Amino acid sequence: MSQRGGIHRLTTAVLLLCAALPCGAAELNLMPWPSHVTQQEGFLNLEHTPQIQLTGGDERVHHALTRFMRSLSVRTGVPFDHHFSGAPEGPRFVIRCAGPGLHVQALAEDESYHLTVSQTGIELTAANPLGIMHGLETVLQLVRPSPQGWVLPDVLIDDTPRFAWRGLMIDVSRHFMPFEALERNIDGMAAVKLNVLHLHLSDDEGFRVESKRRPRLTELASDGLFYTQDQMRELIAYARDRGVRVVPEFDVPGHAVSWLVAYPKLASGPAPQALVRSEQDKLRPPFDPTQEATYVLLDTVFGEMEALFPDRYFHIGGDEVDGKYWDKDATIQAWMRTHKIKDNHALQTYFTKRVEQIVHKHGKDMEGWDEILDGNLPKNSLIQSWRGAESLADAARMGYKTILSAGYYLDLMYPASQHYAVDPLSGKSAALTAEEKSHILGGEAAQWAEYVTPENLDNRLWPRLGAIAERLWSPESVTDIPSMYRRLAVLSRNLEYLGLEHQTSSSRMLDRIEGDDMPPELLETLARAVEPVKEYHRERTQKYDAERPLNHLVDAVSPESDQAREINALAQRAVHDPSARPELRKRFIQWRDNNAALEPYLATSMLRAPLAPLSQNLSVLGALGIAALDSIESAHPVTPEQRKEQLAKVDESAAPHAELFLVVTPAVRVLIEAEPVNQ
Amino acid sequence: MSQRGGIHRLTTAVLLLCAALPCGAAELNLMPWPSHVTQQEGFLNLEHTPQIQLTGGDERVHHALTRFMRSLSVRTGVPFDHHFSGAPEGPRFVIRCAGPGLHVQALAEDESYHLTVSQTGIELTAANPLGIMHGLETVLQLVRPSPQGWVLPDVLIDDTPRFAWRGLMIDVSRHFMPFEALERNIDGMAAVKLNVLHLHLSDDEGFRVESKRRPRLTELASDGLFYTQDQMRELIAYARDRGVRVVPEFDVPGHAVSWLVAYPKLASGPAPQALVRSEQDKLRPPFDPTQEATYVLLDTVFGEMEALFPDRYFHIGGDEVDGKYWDKDATIQAWMRTHKIKDNHALQTYFTKRVEQIVHKHGKDMEGWDEILDGNLPKNSLIQSWRGAESLADAARMGYKTILSAGYYLDLMYPASQHYAVDPLSGKSAALTAEEKSHILGGEAAQWAEYVTPENLDNRLWPRLGAIAERLWSPESVTDIPSMYRRLAVLSRNLEYLGLEHQTSSSRMLDRIEGDDMPPELLETLARAVEPVKEYHRERTQKYDAERPLNHLVDAVSPESDQAREINALAQRAVHDPSARPELRKRFIQWRDNNAALEPYLATSMLRAPLAPLSQNLSVLGALGIAALDSIESAHPVTPEQRKEQLAKVDESAAPHAELFLVVTPAVRVLIEAEPVNQ
Repeated sequence: MSQRGGIHRLTTAVLLLCAALPCGAAELNLMPWPSHVTQQEGFLNLEHTPQIQLTGGDERVHHALTRFMRSLSVRTGVPFDHHFSGAPEGPRFVIRCAGPGLHVQALAEDESYHLTVSQTGIELTAANPLGIMHGLETVLQLVRPSPQGWVLPDVLIDDTPRFAWRGLMIDVSRHFMPFEALERNIDGMAAVKLNVLHLHLSDDEGFRVESKRRPRLTELASDGLFYTQDQMRELIAYARDRGVRVVPEFDVPGHAVSWLVAYPKLASGPAPQALVRSEQDKLRPPFDPTQEATYVLLDTVFGEMEALFPDRYFHIGGDEVDGKYWDKDATIQAWMRTHKIKDNHALQTYFTKRVEQIVHKHGKDMEGWDEILDGNLPKNSLIQSWRGAESLADAARMGYKTILSAGYYLDLMYPASQHYAVDPLSGKSAALTAEEKSHILGGEAAQWAEYVTPENLDNRLWPRLGAIAERLWSPESVTDIPSMYRRLAVLSRNLEYLGLEHQTSSSRMLDRIEGDDMPPELLETLARAVEPVKEYHRERTQKYDAERPLNHLVDAVSPESDQAREINALAQRAVHDPSARPELRKRFIQWRDNNAALEPYLATSMLRAPLAPLSQNLSVLGALGIAALDSIESAHPVTPEQRKEQLAKVDESAAPHAELFLVVTPAVRVLIEAEPVNQ
Repeated sequence: MSQRGGIHRLTTAVLLLCAALPCGAAELNLMPWPSHVTQQEGFLNLEHTPQIQLTGGDERVHHALTRFMRSLSVRTGVPFDHHFSGAPEGPRFVIRCAGPGLHVQALAEDESYHLTVSQTGIELTAANPLGIMHGLETVLQLVRPSPQGWVLPDVLIDDTPRFAWRGLMIDVSRHFMPFEALERNIDGMAAVKLNVLHLHLSDDEGFRVESKRRPRLTELASDGLFYTQDQMRELIAYARDRGVRVVPEFDVPGHAVSWLVAYPKLASGPAPQALVRSEQDKLRPPFDPTQEATYVLLDTVFGEMEALFPDRYFHIGGDEVDGKYWDKDATIQAWMRTHKIKDNHALQTYFTKRVEQIVHKHGKDMEGWDEILDGNLPKNSLIQSWRGAESLADAARMGYKTILSAGYYLDLMYPASQHYAVDPLSGKSAALTAEEKSHILGGEAAQWAEYVTPENLDNRLWPRLGAIAERLWSPESVTDIPSMYRRLAVLSRNLEYLGLEHQTSSSRMLDRIEGDDMPPELLETLARAVEPVKEYHRERTQKYDAERPLNHLVDAVSPESDQAREINALAQRAVHDPSARPELRKRFIQWRDNNAALEPYLATSMLRAPLAPLSQNLSVLGALGIAALDSIESAHPVTPEQRKEQLAKVDESAAPHAELFLVVTPAVRVLIEAEPVNQ
């Protein structure tokens, strides 16, 4: 969570992994890993900027080169972007781009590139500016210090993405994310070669983009927090400049309270009076799909938005329509009978087809969540699968283009390794024909924002998003988890160099909790042993409320504790390897003793008080760990009852408090299970 | 140097100090300390934003209030700036400003304010918007977490500055500082109630502001790095909005190579061909003060710049004129004889008086470094004393207004306590009459930029600048150094919240040195034990060179090591207090063992290799410290020869390497000196 602390943990991880893997100094810190890499002996020294020779491409290549020089300066501390210029006799950096890209970046564009670094220079070639941009990111990742100065290792790289659609969805409705937060995350996306930013622009909580044709949406359907059309155009240009498409989503017919606050007559059943601000606000009707006025409004607004957003795809949501509003509305029921619509699914399909005609009329292809899936939609529709990989395979089999989001929900707080293991072409999709598989375009990470603010957005996305980016770019065979974590740690640091704030904001939030009165190592010891509760558990103990400050420890820590992962691995090793035990014992002692020192500080701040049970339980775990090590090392057996009791205490200590739970219990459990037992 | 590490060190400092001082939880974290503070029982709870009632002032008060809400949000994590608004029944925040301020902020304006915080609300009153701005910064510093939520302690504060001129000079010529770097440092200045930003805009290395009337200056006298006039106007408005005046300096007749590259005929002797880029460039003539064309050019450019910069004061430099160019120029010598100018001082005075007429003609008062001091200048001239406090007293006695910079040179790398001890009214000034003392307007910190880049500017200024700000604002009696360091640590954290990068950039630079391959605690152990060499020592081993990347450890670490200060204090205590020894022994062991682990990593990067002797010496110091502790604890005497040898080793280990030196030698020395000696 803390910048230095975070890097500390990660480096420790590297050391641990090196014990198990052949990871010499030569391993390249590339993420996503390229399709083909050949590393050779030798280095190119960057003592001075190589002389740049650029041909072809479009203005994006020039912009990318300027950014590259700036990033290189940050990476090295050498002001390449100011005072240095290539000497005629120095090495050359030859960049050749065969042609310009499309005016509106498209799925079908060639993103591959070829890169050679040798002692005489760098050669980067690509068919399309997108390839040059990706290649420059790769060059940046190769830069490293050496005894002779900053160098690039000699390499040959041929790189092309496995999937054409590599996206990130951000929900900007439940918590509005400022323009700058989107910009810096686009920078991060470009660094890991992601190419689609999907903005969830409307939901029950707010309609987040200015409508000039229907200004009621801006006035009434947001709480004043929205992007102007000028801002949106600027963001789209910013993204395009970095090889990222922007796909807008306006969620209909459900998740549409914001629309209906502005247009109450179009609600199914009683109209909502106000935007949803919290889980308490239960009245969330969908659009009434039986009114022609609904389609008139959608035609007007979608027409306006399809002109604003140049991408070929236009996302209409379509998820989680609450049928009870339709069931209870007599007019809707009568209309359904008249039109022989047999159930709510059929009614939604009727709606979806009408909306698709609107989307299509304005020149776009419709995209929607998997609830819209029905055999009768036009085949150019794109299905985003969120409920499971089955719908992905189903959609592909029906002939629809489709992308996977199930398994890539970053708001569920899973570790990077779990997302990394999700492959769009595995499971049910593996059985598809080649033709069917070709409909699977890729995937999208998703960040729903009930519990995310502009302050911790980066922390909720990074570095885990890097693992998903690699899954979607790199060959299917790239699955080594220790290697992934090692490279992810380097990426994480470099992203901070780029302006992402996942470590610094976490550090700042932790500082705030510590206040001015306490030694930070006490809270950090606890913070590194916990993670936010997973899946939708937080919603049970702390309902969504837009007014609630998200400034507690759960909001500050990373979704994944690197230190916990390391300790759990160390304990597994320690079962058979005595050399791993002293380090482990040191940690256990630290845990055991931490609570006595921390406890006096907890009561004096409302940000700290809820952490008391976690701190007590960490202390219990420390003591149990020491006892287990003692038993193993002295070969002093425990009775089955003692062991049972110890394991029960471990179970108890894993209980969530303050929306957090201790994730180091496996380390203690594995040692208890390894104790000699006296039958 | 590292963000978390930095805070860690500082907190440890607090704990150490608390052992010696009565610093209860109630001590307020205010810096600069106000003239009068009365703290009372009770708190105002900030659960919701108090309802704001603002009367009077000008637009700056509104802007300051908006910034206040945003800062409050960052400080608390509560989105005060978005979703919250004062409930009618809640507490009130009454702000009353008697009137607007002057259009151009002036020295004479009343900066005082009166602040009351009670359980029913906040009342802030001032005669002038400047007082309101200062008061809002004080309120921000009072915010703290409590068991009940975020609170403000009940206080009565009457606050007024001791000196009217509280400045910071930044040299933007030797290393150009981007606009954003100046902006964020203005934010920092406002946070500590500093009110003058003095920009050293021209020197041998570059002329840093656009001239439209003499575009040759922009084209030839800078290397392309300069502020446009629009930017300058924006910066001045930005500063004014934060209660900060901007005083420009154009240094003449010396330090003027940039001017003379554009206007070579005006040089004394042979004209320079190019801007000074490094210490190697020896040709640095001053203006020829005997040519009328010199005054024509200055009249044109100063006229333009005096229109651009609205402040009443206009700084013409005047320092370090190298007389040898005048001595060697036959035309100048002949002119001097003709005009009965007896020496170079008289020639400079002739020049200064001519320049003063130009400055005055355009409606400003002249300011200059103390070399311009001469009894015959107009009495509205302002003398900036840099060569010593004597010139300050001399200037005041002659009836000139004057400010002190000697003792406030931040580029000399002194600790905060040293600057803190420098009082403009002490020493020779103490003997002045009240009337003479009234000419001493205050002081200015100075940051010369031979070895400062935009990346480490903040690190070179903060947090030490806070101590100078307190000296210039707070009553003379506020001199407690432990209290200053305790509050400075809190300020340092809060400045990072505000966007200053003194900790984060230091952390990033350290990361870069560590690269991807080494455990960071090894380098950090070393980094916390060293400081950059002091005064002008770096110039001896590493001459100034604008092309040199400043990306080494000396550039990354803070000029003052908090941990070293703590350890040295701990060792002093440990001589008589056995309870201080275990912690000290732990540190000594860490130092002793650090080199063996660090050494293998040093050789593999050009950024690390030069650190080897420092690391070895730290190891030596650790071993010596352990031996001394052993001797003290076991009462086992050493021979006088042994002690002499030990002290010699300590001396050796203090030698500088890589522009750094170990600052923890006093800890070891004091223990060796406390060893029992067997005569």
